[in-house]
Amino acid sequence: MARTGRRPGTGTTRERILAAARSDFGKGGYEGTTIRGIAAQAKVDPALVMHYFDSKDGVFRAALQFPVDPADFIPKLLAPGLEGLGERLVRFFVETWDSPVGTPLLAVIRSAVGNEDAAALLRQFVTREVLGRLARALELDKPQLRAALVASQLVGLAMLRYVVRVEPLASASAAELVAWLGPTLQRYLTDPGLTKEGTRRTRRASSA
Amino acid sequence: MARTGRRPGTGTTRERILAAARSDFGKGGYEGTTIRGIAAQAKVDPALVMHYFDSKDGVFRAALQFPVDPADFIPKLLAPGLEGLGERLVRFFVETWDSPVGTPLLAVIRSAVGNEDAAALLRQFVTREVLGRLARALELDKPQLRAALVASQLVGLAMLRYVVRVEPLASASAAELVAWLGPTLQRYLTDPGLTKEGTRRTRRASSA
Repeated sequence: MARTGRRPGTGTTRERILAAARSDFGKGGYEGTTIRGIAAQAKVDPALVMHYFDSKDGVFRAALQFPVDPADFIPKLLAPGLEGLGERLVRFFVETWDSPVGTPLLAVIRSAVGNEDAAALLRQFVTREVLGRLARALELDKPQLRAALVASQLVGLAMLRYVVRVEPLASASAAELVAWLGPTLQRYLTDPGLTKEGTRRTRRASSA
Repeated sequence: MARTGRRPGTGTTRERILAAARSDFGKGGYEGTTIRGIAAQAKVDPALVMHYFDSKDGVFRAALQFPVDPADFIPKLLAPGLEGLGERLVRFFVETWDSPVGTPLLAVIRSAVGNEDAAALLRQFVTREVLGRLARALELDKPQLRAALVASQLVGLAMLRYVVRVEPLASASAAELVAWLGPTLQRYLTDPGLTKEGTRRTRRASSA
């Protein structure tokens, strides 16, 4: 866990490890990927992988190049409680994308859409790091579904506002987007009726 | 307008016209693009462009390779009235993507995400053909905004279900998705309070 005083490598060794990690995580999934396997594919010693990235989780996040850390922002968004969480999520999402961090986020989306391995990597990251954290904090039934629905609305907003740039979403203010999308996210996150409706056709709903 | 008995060309001339059209529509927009300009760039006679595609609108749709025709499906979805429109839209969207048409739709999304001209083409198509038609049929304030919000939720669903394939959205049934997302779309389409909330911070709301 201890970092050395050396700057993180920026040369070809570090890049070779990340390329191997992208391929391994993409094909084998998070669980099926090992530091040893990544090191073997990159033709380096496993200790060197640990030196650069500290842990399997560290390699995973570096491989995806996701510019914000869910371990940091999710607890902050959840801290004030469930009330108003939908609006806080929209505001945080829009302000993050509108900031310089938006460019690398767009790169993550572009690579996931263009490449199967990158899509698998993003799926695992979103599932583990974003939806998983959010789901564990929600004391409601079907937390994984609720988090995925939230993600679907936010990713769609990113596509229309930043990728395809459809008006009036492209030039709307954060406050407008919060007012339009906040209630959607709040329903996905906290409405007890949400999952009953969705499952009534296939099985009896059991909340909590 | 009359079609000849010849089969649509599949060789290099037709492809060259479509490549020129993608570039022209992407850079100049729908309004700024002419049959004559496309023909000049493709180094063919304008009559040949008309022969293959009948109209500027025909070249536009062929250039995008959008596999379903909004002039066909939007009136059908709207015919029963505003009640239940959100659910009908989700069902139609999911059933279309789950059908063989889903593969070319995914190709449209991929190219828009990977390429600026393709993104511009998709933006114009979505704005003119999909949102425009939907907006004209909605007898409510801010129809363009309402249609864009609907599109944001549906595109996000497509991204999570078909591109990144996040569970439980990836394997949910159409009925479940209708129950989860239908109320979201219905609010975007018909809630009179939607646009008041969004604009109260910047100007007085004035509903139609």
